Amino acid sequence: MRTLVSELATKIGSTVTLSGWVHRIRDLGGVSFLLLRDRSGSAQVVFTAKPDVTLESVVRIDGVAAANEKAPGGVEVRAETLTVISPAAPDLPFPVNQDPTKTSLESILDNRMISLRAPALLSIFRVQATILRCFAEHLRGEGFTEIKTSKLIGTGTEGGTGLFSVDYFDTKVYLTQSPQIYKQAMVAAGLERVFEIGPAYRAEKHDTPRHINEFVSLDVEMAFIESEQDLMDLETRILAAIFEGVRRDNVRDLEAWKAVVPDPESCARIPRVSHDEAKDIIGKETGKKVYEIAPEGERALCDWAGKTAGVDAVFVYAYPRKSRPFYTFPADNNRTRSFDLLFRGLEITSGSVRINTYDMLVENLKSFDLNPEGLSDYLSIFKYGCPPHGGFAIGMERLTQKLLGLGSVKEATLFPRDRRRIRP
Amino acid sequence: MRTLVSELATKIGSTVTLSGWVHRIRDLGGVSFLLLRDRSGSAQVVFTAKPDVTLESVVRIDGVAAANEKAPGGVEVRAETLTVISPAAPDLPFPVNQDPTKTSLESILDNRMISLRAPALLSIFRVQATILRCFAEHLRGEGFTEIKTSKLIGTGTEGGTGLFSVDYFDTKVYLTQSPQIYKQAMVAAGLERVFEIGPAYRAEKHDTPRHINEFVSLDVEMAFIESEQDLMDLETRILAAIFEGVRRDNVRDLEAWKAVVPDPESCARIPRVSHDEAKDIIGKETGKKVYEIAPEGERALCDWAGKTAGVDAVFVYAYPRKSRPFYTFPADNNRTRSFDLLFRGLEITSGSVRINTYDMLVENLKSFDLNPEGLSDYLSIFKYGCPPHGGFAIGMERLTQKLLGLGSVKEATLFPRDRRRIRP
Repeated sequence: MRTLVSELATKIGSTVTLSGWVHRIRDLGGVSFLLLRDRSGSAQVVFTAKPDVTLESVVRIDGVAAANEKAPGGVEVRAETLTVISPAAPDLPFPVNQDPTKTSLESILDNRMISLRAPALLSIFRVQATILRCFAEHLRGEGFTEIKTSKLIGTGTEGGTGLFSVDYFDTKVYLTQSPQIYKQAMVAAGLERVFEIGPAYRAEKHDTPRHINEFVSLDVEMAFIESEQDLMDLETRILAAIFEGVRRDNVRDLEAWKAVVPDPESCARIPRVSHDEAKDIIGKETGKKVYEIAPEGERALCDWAGKTAGVDAVFVYAYPRKSRPFYTFPADNNRTRSFDLLFRGLEITSGSVRINTYDMLVENLKSFDLNPEGLSDYLSIFKYGCPPHGGFAIGMERLTQKLLGLGSVKEATLFPRDRRRIRP
Repeated sequence: MRTLVSELATKIGSTVTLSGWVHRIRDLGGVSFLLLRDRSGSAQVVFTAKPDVTLESVVRIDGVAAANEKAPGGVEVRAETLTVISPAAPDLPFPVNQDPTKTSLESILDNRMISLRAPALLSIFRVQATILRCFAEHLRGEGFTEIKTSKLIGTGTEGGTGLFSVDYFDTKVYLTQSPQIYKQAMVAAGLERVFEIGPAYRAEKHDTPRHINEFVSLDVEMAFIESEQDLMDLETRILAAIFEGVRRDNVRDLEAWKAVVPDPESCARIPRVSHDEAKDIIGKETGKKVYEIAPEGERALCDWAGKTAGVDAVFVYAYPRKSRPFYTFPADNNRTRSFDLLFRGLEITSGSVRINTYDMLVENLKSFDLNPEGLSDYLSIFKYGCPPHGGFAIGMERLTQKLLGLGSVKEATLFPRDRRRIRP
């Protein structure tokens, strides 16, 4: 019967069998220490002779658990036998047991299959799993239904730009940029409150620490709302649930990055400023004239929120019509019922109230130079009774990145795809 | 303050505000009955004059809740005012309030945006949401970590056949058939136990009630297993959790399809027969000579399991090597450590122990005429220590279909993609 490293402290004095990866070997002459890694942590194993095994080999160790306050977790295993289950070649292409922040991102990603063994790098994805869980659990608690919609579409909702095309039998289809059409369809079909977790694609040539061409979109859509304030309220509750979950369940993973997750209660203090107010604030903070909110401005706004509200995030609402998709509900001739959430200097969410009347939508399509004929399925949603509704999407990788303080969104993506990278 | 239909029974005697869709209007002269649909159910609303509103319009109704044992749920609302929130055009393209099983699948799918409003059709996806939830919750309870991996790959794991190609900047990539490579990578990286819920693609020209070209794969991979029996044990526990969840949380949805979900305890009785035994059983049951297990044989096997074990499912293990992917662990020269689960006559799962040693894998690649060079990232997983492991994938749509007794897997897919269908 296998014992996990996390269970060792309860086994002191007993014979145990550990299984895992050889993380490090330290030979002190008469005694050797082997650090064994399994999914629950790492344990010190003591040998009287240097064990003949390569780093990263998968082994089974039989021995006796013994208290040792100098060992990690206050317990070590005195080895009796070591059995190699799967030997590792000696030419390890990535230094798994070194601090990965000292290695270039290129090297980490080129050797992704092996670099993910570095405990700090793997810990990123334990945090991500908690984000996924808390997002879904919170929404289910508010009566939301999870949906899974097609990622292959005949035409783009926002025109044909920015779409990857797929050879589909004798025709071309496109990878979706968002489940926008489908989540609105499911709200109108009667589910009222839906969420979807799925991949989304942007065929953009950006090559920056904040862009990837394939990402996981945490999508939400909700009917019978009064205004975009309801959506910001909902996102506030979701974030609080995620922060609470990560703080509770990822203590060790957060330590690996010296990451501080905001207090869940601080979410209710996230300032809400209009796009115009945001530009004024950025102008005052940076001393520069502000024409649009650029990355530098997003950082200045978050710093301002940190100083004034004690939380490093800000909702910006009432974006100009020309900067938002055609389905965004207008607030007046120039502005929309839309919002973004900026967190630690980065946009992690975009949302809005959606147009829910057929005539307004057709008119707006024309003003965006889009052809209503290509969107006839989408338009039918609104022809036959559709409640007021709205929604938003959170970028899973960006949220992970910012929670852990990572330099690039690619670090928070298991197998990132960018303009140049399609492997591993 | 809005009252949901499901809350009405607690509001008898009170003024209430309902919001929802006009499902049906029955005019009896001095009195009219309007059936109002919201996300929680349907309620009868009584008017003294026929309300001037079209079917499917979204309305708000203010009135008083009153007990009436003839009304659905034993309560009705006596309307005071009706406000049209979003009017529906009168030319409804799909009879939302009729029995959808009387309409052709073509018509249901051509009008998908509207047909999903039919309560029975929408109920399918409430059941599917429960499947998603119970799958994930059960696995988390057993220490599995959820992962999200890329759906865009440079080369196929199983050669280039059956892959859709994507124009990716100046090169071609492919849509994944399964997260196989990546879930094995994450097991070897140290998570040991992972699951992924994501889309998968098969560029096959089949056009049958059991095939779609895009589906959601419920993927599981687990390290430190002894044999394929451990995997069948795990799937048994997952199925029991799903069946229990659906029976508890989808009573109304199951009624809509007169569907009977197996007793969770029956999962432990699912017979496990080898591929050779399965052929013998099919031969005896059908009186025909059996060369391979075809759809007719799968049905006969499940019928046999129903008769002999009281559960309409069967695990078939030890498939021939030539019929399984190159990464499948061989049991001997001819057979593999693999299995399928057949449920109600349909294969819903395929799984196996995986080859976890580099040399065996390279040798097997060659016998499959595959080029190790194109799979060097994949092979590196096994070069540097990889525990024994295996896994399986459950087709979400097929499981939903069979749980509800639907005729086609397309009915259990929100927006199915087949050889001819790429909309809506």
